[in-house]
Amino acid sequence: MSDWRGEKRAREERIAAGRPHATGKVVAAGAVIDLLEAVLRPGDRVCLEGDNQKQADCLARGLAACDPAKIHDLHMVQSGIVLPEHLDVFETGIARRLDYSYSGPQGGRIARMLYGGQIELGAVHTYLELFARYFVDLTPNVALIAGVSADREGNLYTGPNTEDTPTVVEATAFKNGVVIAQVNEIVERVPRVDIPGDRVDFVVAADKPFYVEPLFTRDPAAMTETQILMAMMAIKGIYAEYGIRRLNHGIGFGTAAIELLLPTYGERLGLKGKIATHWALNPHPTLIPAIESGWVSQVHCFGSEVGMDRYIRERPDVFFTGADGSLRSNRAFCQTAGLYACDLFIGSTLQIDLMGHSSTVTQNRVAGFGGAPNMGSDPHGRRHPSDTWMKAGREAQGGGDPLLMRGRKLVVQLVETFGDKLVPTFVERLDAMELAKKTGLELAPVMVYADDVTHIVTEEGIANLLLCRDAGEREQAIRGVAGYTEIGRGRDRAKVEALRSRGIVRRPEDLGIEPLDADRSLLAAKSIKDLVHWSGGLYDPPAKFRNW
Amino acid sequence: MSDWRGEKRAREERIAAGRPHATGKVVAAGAVIDLLEAVLRPGDRVCLEGDNQKQADCLARGLAACDPAKIHDLHMVQSGIVLPEHLDVFETGIARRLDYSYSGPQGGRIARMLYGGQIELGAVHTYLELFARYFVDLTPNVALIAGVSADREGNLYTGPNTEDTPTVVEATAFKNGVVIAQVNEIVERVPRVDIPGDRVDFVVAADKPFYVEPLFTRDPAAMTETQILMAMMAIKGIYAEYGIRRLNHGIGFGTAAIELLLPTYGERLGLKGKIATHWALNPHPTLIPAIESGWVSQVHCFGSEVGMDRYIRERPDVFFTGADGSLRSNRAFCQTAGLYACDLFIGSTLQIDLMGHSSTVTQNRVAGFGGAPNMGSDPHGRRHPSDTWMKAGREAQGGGDPLLMRGRKLVVQLVETFGDKLVPTFVERLDAMELAKKTGLELAPVMVYADDVTHIVTEEGIANLLLCRDAGEREQAIRGVAGYTEIGRGRDRAKVEALRSRGIVRRPEDLGIEPLDADRSLLAAKSIKDLVHWSGGLYDPPAKFRNW
Repeated sequence: MSDWRGEKRAREERIAAGRPHATGKVVAAGAVIDLLEAVLRPGDRVCLEGDNQKQADCLARGLAACDPAKIHDLHMVQSGIVLPEHLDVFETGIARRLDYSYSGPQGGRIARMLYGGQIELGAVHTYLELFARYFVDLTPNVALIAGVSADREGNLYTGPNTEDTPTVVEATAFKNGVVIAQVNEIVERVPRVDIPGDRVDFVVAADKPFYVEPLFTRDPAAMTETQILMAMMAIKGIYAEYGIRRLNHGIGFGTAAIELLLPTYGERLGLKGKIATHWALNPHPTLIPAIESGWVSQVHCFGSEVGMDRYIRERPDVFFTGADGSLRSNRAFCQTAGLYACDLFIGSTLQIDLMGHSSTVTQNRVAGFGGAPNMGSDPHGRRHPSDTWMKAGREAQGGGDPLLMRGRKLVVQLVETFGDKLVPTFVERLDAMELAKKTGLELAPVMVYADDVTHIVTEEGIANLLLCRDAGEREQAIRGVAGYTEIGRGRDRAKVEALRSRGIVRRPEDLGIEPLDADRSLLAAKSIKDLVHWSGGLYDPPAKFRNW
Repeated sequence: MSDWRGEKRAREERIAAGRPHATGKVVAAGAVIDLLEAVLRPGDRVCLEGDNQKQADCLARGLAACDPAKIHDLHMVQSGIVLPEHLDVFETGIARRLDYSYSGPQGGRIARMLYGGQIELGAVHTYLELFARYFVDLTPNVALIAGVSADREGNLYTGPNTEDTPTVVEATAFKNGVVIAQVNEIVERVPRVDIPGDRVDFVVAADKPFYVEPLFTRDPAAMTETQILMAMMAIKGIYAEYGIRRLNHGIGFGTAAIELLLPTYGERLGLKGKIATHWALNPHPTLIPAIESGWVSQVHCFGSEVGMDRYIRERPDVFFTGADGSLRSNRAFCQTAGLYACDLFIGSTLQIDLMGHSSTVTQNRVAGFGGAPNMGSDPHGRRHPSDTWMKAGREAQGGGDPLLMRGRKLVVQLVETFGDKLVPTFVERLDAMELAKKTGLELAPVMVYADDVTHIVTEEGIANLLLCRDAGEREQAIRGVAGYTEIGRGRDRAKVEALRSRGIVRRPEDLGIEPLDADRSLLAAKSIKDLVHWSGGLYDPPAKFRNW
C-alpha cells in the first residue's frame, strides 16, 4: 500500500525538530543556525528569498554558517543571487545545484564558479518562469523569507517590498514545505497582513533590518545629451506614433531620460493623456515629475524603491497601497501585467548582433535575465486588441487576411552605439555564445531573441524591424543605426538609404528633431535634489545620492 | 493643487454608505441589494466573481435585482460568464460594457446580445491576460467574491475552489476598491486564511451555498474506441517520443482517455516515471487511476472539482493543500505554470482550418477562450531548457546555429475528424471569421493560432507540423489526417505519402499500433463507479454521474 502522506509527515517532523529553538513560532536571531540545522535536510530544495531588492540576509548568513556535514547538497531555487552568502553556500558544499533568475552584483563570481564546476546549474530563468516552476517541478521544501514585522501568530507585514514573498510562500506552504520568515521586529499586531500566519511556521527576530538595494534610482545629474536625444526620438518616433499608453520601462539612464522628458518635451508635443498613462514599473524616482504633472493614471509595482515610501503613501490614487498606507508590490502579478497587459517594453542591453539578438552576458559575467525576456517577448497568448498593438501587428504582417492578423508587442532596445569604456554595442557574434560553449550551457544566454525585437534606438536613429521583409533588410537596418562601430561602418549605404526612404531607418531630422535641441534644459529634473523638490519633500533619497 | 486621494476618499465614502446595512463587516443575505446599491456607483468597473467553477451567485442575484435607475452602466470585468444573472444585468442596463474570458453555458446568449448591441464588448481574454489587466487598466472598483466561510474580521476561507479569488482581491483591495464576499457561513475561526480580513470590507451570509460547476468530470462509460485509439497514438507517438513529464490537459474525452490509459497502455510501454509526472491540471477524476498507480508526482490545480475533496485530502503528497487539509487551488499561478513550466498543452477544438488555426467559436456561440490560448502558445520568454522542449525546437528549426536555437512548447490538437452530429472539424474557413465580421470584432476569435500548433492527432493519424517546411507541406499534413471530411478528401495523395515517408504524417500502423487493439478493456476505469473504487471510496461523484 502506498504512502500518500510521506511529505506531509516529513514537514511535521521538521517543524517538531525546529520547535525547541523557538518560543511558539518566534526564534531569536542567535538561534538561527540551530533552527536551520534542525529543519533542513540534505538535498532539500530551498528558496532563500533573494529578490530584486529585498534580501533575507539574516537567514542567508545563518544558512552560510550551517555545518556542511549536517546540511549539504541543497538545491537553491531563488530569483536573485545578490549577496555574497548566496554563493558562499556553494563553496562550502552546503548547496550544490542552482536555479535562478538574476544576479547583478554577483554576475562575475557566478561565471567563475560555473567555469570551476562549483555550481551545478539548472537554468537561468525569467522571474515569472521560475515562479511557474515553483508550482510544477521546483517546489521548495523550505522557504527562507523576509518581512518588516510579524505578530506571534506569524502574520507577516512585508512593507512596500512585498515582491516575491506571496509567491514563494504559496508554493512552499501549500505543498508540505516549511516557511521561515526573518522580520525586523515582532509586534502585537501587524499594520497589514501580507502573508497570513497559518502559512508561516517560524519567525526569526533578525539582528538588523533586512537589506534592500536601491536598484532603480538614476541621478538626473548624470544624464547625457546623447541620452536625451535618444529619449526624444523614442517619444516622438515610437511613443507618439503608436500611441503607447500601457508600458514597462527597463532599468537605465535612457528610459529614465524618457521619464524626465514627458512633462517637458512630451507636453510640448501635446502628448499628455495620450501616452504613458498606465505602468507596470518599480517606483522610479525619475517618474515623479511626470506623476506630479498629471501624466500618470496608475502604476503597479514589482517591488518598491528605497526612499519612495513617503511619496507613495501620499499618492494612493496612483500606486497600489494597503490599508496601512504603504505600497503593496507583487512581482508575479507585475511581471504578468508586463507580459500580457502592456503594449511596450523598452530596455537596454550590452550587445546586439546582426540579426537583432541581444544579451547582457559578457564572457566574464552571467548577469541573469530578471524580467526582460518575459516582458520583452511577444506573447502569442494575448487576445485583446489595442490600437498600439494592432498598428504594430499590421506593420509586421504587411498583408494577408486582416481578420487573421494578430497584433504585436512593441519591444524596443534603447542603446548607445558604444557603451561603457567605448565598447561597441553592435557585434558580429554575442559573447553569450562563447560563454555557452565554455560552460557547456545547452542554450546561449540570449536576453531577447531577434524575432521579438521591434525597434532599435541609438543616437544615430531608429530602426523599425517590424517593417523589414527579410534578413538582409534587417541586417542593413541594424547596421544603419549602429553608428561608427565596425558593424555600422560595414553598412551598404545605398541599401540603408533605401530603407530610410521607406521609413525603416529614421534619423533625428526625419523625425523633425534637431540634435542640438537635445539639451539638459529639457530634463524636468536635473538632479536628485530637483526630484525631492518635485515630490514636495516626500522623496527621501538614500545617502549615496545626496550631495547637498 | 492636485488631489491625490480622490479614489481613496471615494472608497471610504462607499464603505461608510454600506456600513448601515452591516453589523461590523457582516451583512445579512436579505440586505444584499441595499448594500450593493449603497456601495456601487454608476460606471464602476465591477468584478462579479464568475470563475471556471465557483460562482458568487448570491451577489449575482443581488446585483441583478438592483434598481437600474440607481446602478447602471457598470463595466463588468470577470473571468466567467456562467450564470444567467451575468447577462441579465446587461438587459436591464445595470451593466453596459464587458471584458471577460470564458462563457461555456452562456455562449449562445452572449452571441445574440453582441449581435443585438446589448453588450459593449471590450475584449475576450485568456484568464491570465484578464488578470494582468486587473493591475494595469481594468482594475475593479468593486469585487464581489465568494468563499466557504469567514470570521467577523473578514478573514476568508475559500475552500478548495480558491481559483481567481486571491488575484481579484489583490487588484481591488490594494487600489482603493471595495471587496464584498459572500460566504456559506460565518464562523468563529476559519479553517485556514485564504484571504486576510484586512482586504475584505463586507461579508455577506449567503442564503445558500455558492454554486460550483463540475466541469472536469468525464464519465469513462461514455468513452469510445476512437477516442481510445487517439489516446494510444498520443501516448506512443508524442508523450513517449518527446518524453513529456510536465504537462496540462485540456477538458474533453480525448485527454481523459489518455489519463485512463496511462496505468494500462502506458505501463505496458514501460513509460511509468518517464512521462506525465508533473501536472498543471484541475483535479480530474479520470486521473485517479494514474495517481493510485504511482504515475503522478504532483499536481497544481487551477480550481477544484466537485466530489474530489475527500480524495485530495488523503493525497497531500500529490496535491497542494492547506493546513486545514483541503486543496489550495490558484488559477493565476496554475495558468502561469501552464504557460512557462509545462512542455505540453493538449486540448480539443471545434474547427481547424488549412493553416492550422483553430477555434471553438461557431456562428451562434461565443464560448470565450479560458486558458487555452495562454497554455496553448509557445512562450518566447521561456529560458530554461528541457529535453522535450529542445527536441521540439530542433524539429522546428531544422538547421542553423544550435546555440541560437530555442526550444518549442508542444501544442497538440486532439480531435476527431467529425465532431458532434457529424459536423466536420476541418474547414476551409473558421466560423470565427464570419462571427468577427458580423459583430465587428477587430480580431477573429481564434483559439490557437497556426504558428503555435505543433501536432494534430485524429483517428487517422498524427500530423507533425513542426517538421513541415512550408505552407504547402503544412496544408497537406493537415489534409492528411483530416479523414473523410471534404478537407481530407481534397488531399494530394502523393504528397501526403511523401510526408508520411518523412514521418510528418504517421498512421497507427506507422506507430506500431493496431487499431483493433483500441478497446475499452484498455481503460483503467470503465465507469464512474470504477473511479470511486480506484479512489478507495474517497471520490464522491455528483449525483448526475451516479447511475448505481
